[in-house]
Amino acid sequence: MLSVNEAIDALLGDSKRLVKHETIDLIDASGRTLAGNIIAPIDVPPADNSAMDGYAIRFADGSDPQSGITLSQRVTAGSVAGELEPATAARIFTGAEVPTGADTVVMQEHCEEAGGAVRILKLPEQGANIRRRGQDLSTGQKVLSKGQRLRSQDLGLAASLGISRVGVYRRLKVAVMSTGDELREPGDDLQPGQIYNSNRYMMKSQLAAWGFDIVDMGVARDDPEAVRQMMIQAASEADVVITSGGVSVGEEDHVKDVVASLGAIDLWRIAVKPGKPFAFGQVCGKPFIGLPGNPVSVFVTLLVIARPYLFACQGVSDTAVHAVRQIALFDKKGSQREDYLRVRATANGVELFPNQSSGVLFSTSWGDGLVRQSVGRDIQTGNLVDYLPYAVFN
Amino acid sequence: MLSVNEAIDALLGDSKRLVKHETIDLIDASGRTLAGNIIAPIDVPPADNSAMDGYAIRFADGSDPQSGITLSQRVTAGSVAGELEPATAARIFTGAEVPTGADTVVMQEHCEEAGGAVRILKLPEQGANIRRRGQDLSTGQKVLSKGQRLRSQDLGLAASLGISRVGVYRRLKVAVMSTGDELREPGDDLQPGQIYNSNRYMMKSQLAAWGFDIVDMGVARDDPEAVRQMMIQAASEADVVITSGGVSVGEEDHVKDVVASLGAIDLWRIAVKPGKPFAFGQVCGKPFIGLPGNPVSVFVTLLVIARPYLFACQGVSDTAVHAVRQIALFDKKGSQREDYLRVRATANGVELFPNQSSGVLFSTSWGDGLVRQSVGRDIQTGNLVDYLPYAVFN
Repeated sequence: MLSVNEAIDALLGDSKRLVKHETIDLIDASGRTLAGNIIAPIDVPPADNSAMDGYAIRFADGSDPQSGITLSQRVTAGSVAGELEPATAARIFTGAEVPTGADTVVMQEHCEEAGGAVRILKLPEQGANIRRRGQDLSTGQKVLSKGQRLRSQDLGLAASLGISRVGVYRRLKVAVMSTGDELREPGDDLQPGQIYNSNRYMMKSQLAAWGFDIVDMGVARDDPEAVRQMMIQAASEADVVITSGGVSVGEEDHVKDVVASLGAIDLWRIAVKPGKPFAFGQVCGKPFIGLPGNPVSVFVTLLVIARPYLFACQGVSDTAVHAVRQIALFDKKGSQREDYLRVRATANGVELFPNQSSGVLFSTSWGDGLVRQSVGRDIQTGNLVDYLPYAVFN
Repeated sequence: MLSVNEAIDALLGDSKRLVKHETIDLIDASGRTLAGNIIAPIDVPPADNSAMDGYAIRFADGSDPQSGITLSQRVTAGSVAGELEPATAARIFTGAEVPTGADTVVMQEHCEEAGGAVRILKLPEQGANIRRRGQDLSTGQKVLSKGQRLRSQDLGLAASLGISRVGVYRRLKVAVMSTGDELREPGDDLQPGQIYNSNRYMMKSQLAAWGFDIVDMGVARDDPEAVRQMMIQAASEADVVITSGGVSVGEEDHVKDVVASLGAIDLWRIAVKPGKPFAFGQVCGKPFIGLPGNPVSVFVTLLVIARPYLFACQGVSDTAVHAVRQIALFDKKGSQREDYLRVRATANGVELFPNQSSGVLFSTSWGDGLVRQSVGRDIQTGNLVDYLPYAVFN
């Protein structure tokens, strides 16, 4: 059996970026993946500016609190400052450009203004309260990296550099399909032997949250030709095809035969729980991922095993997630597989959902993350464990 | 000065849900906030079904591995099972309904089928491999709570219950405006004294990521009448008005006078760093939040102080974020304010961005989270500190 890390590494080793780049408006780039480094085209700030509301002076002029300094100009944010005349001060406001000649800004609380002059009651150090040109960023510096997914602060940073258009990778198109004659859509009536299709909703929602474009194929009947037709269409429309169900060894599972006939399929034995079975291959030249049928297994394998691969296909450079340490409030025997326990964080540690069966989707909804239990390692109350809040998979 | 927690509590105490509910398709409900509890309308699974591919029998019939049991039916997922005839077995597949009368499923690996009969080589416990009706959820059980933001697994869970439409709160409309004659849009040329408007991009992107509808007011000129007109329009179109800049004590800041004249404004002294100044009030009957002008201060106050309030206005019941413990790889003196340090997690702990000035937006983009440093508490290398990965603010 492959360990979880071996499975992830094998998938990543087989991955390549599947999407070309396109140039889009910065304001639309949230969550998108950068197709190239962003280099600062300007200094930030572009000129020395005042960090305070106050008075800009030559330091040497401010030593005597008794003598007022004549005010020669007034500089507001956005206005253009002239050179500071000798032995004068400029009224200045936060963010305004410091006039040439001035080397210090005195905050207004330490000044007294009267009759067109200002008295400096408390002189700061020379150079105080000035934000220097380029102190945030200097021209030519790399600020954002190819393969990075853009967050709100990254958009803000790019905007601060005057960048209005960015090169990103086109959104990865992921075809989602389920198989199973027993599956009904929510809203329909359930007949004996049928269950509602929860995987479609969960998978679509999660893949869309990751920024992928979804090609929703719906449900294929348990019939080789129906599965075959749907698979060909999915491969023609999407970059990657993902199914849930249909890849176990049971004779009613047609997916693996169809994928094998249209490309190749490997059934992987991964030491993960929940998670069996997992299949990887290709169909009509497109990567194929076959997730299990049980909803919790789908959820866990999608987050833990498929996610890094899909992000790699999207051109994301760092696909790892980082666990944090938490105190276990439960006992759990280790098993022969790496176990992803559904838990909930409290002020004292993480609680275990009582029923860890892979059919119990409520366990994922009840909690806020997973505890990763290593192969063969027992967990006892009070142990530090590896906790993965669902948010880290975003 | 208010502590950060006092400020958050004061805002929450003044908050109320500002949006009515609406009913939408489940598939569109990702990230939306539930307007009522969801109660299971059915049992899940709706009937006893097989957890394995194998043979369904009466336990008593399986005790003799030498005698074959006649196969009387074949039950696939989605098909309707008849009652199991006495002393016979049913071929059964994962997910298929267990025939009435059968009480045990034997996995196919422990059976031998030949000539229309099956021999049980290894009999499991009575009741094995059957997923019982209602074992996941039973009719009437509360599964999702009013005020909860829906994640992919929650959509899957609702779908598994046959629910195709859900009651959620309409998206909160948040008007975003900046003030400052010095602000230029990315893509435009920068004149002396001007800087690019980064706050607009960062705020819009972050608020949209939280699921709010954005009313983008752009930039108001530093002119009382311009600010006034824009403020009136923002309040008429949105549920909440947020500005960046314009609420400090400087005489060029018109926002506070305008808001005061159209409603009320309090300048809050919050012991947060970065973060000064922060204003709260109302304008034409709508809540008003005045964030600072410095981009890092905007980012931190938006995440830490404004976020819980905005989510409360959206009808979200739990607005808290939970820090995790991390090892500091840096020394930092404590100050009189709660300090939100921009950091980056590594395998060994969290590293500090060298320049913690509130003007340096790159510090937020460089890292992946914040360390919360309590008032007056020094941090030394090796200390455990409160780390807030940016993901927890999602």
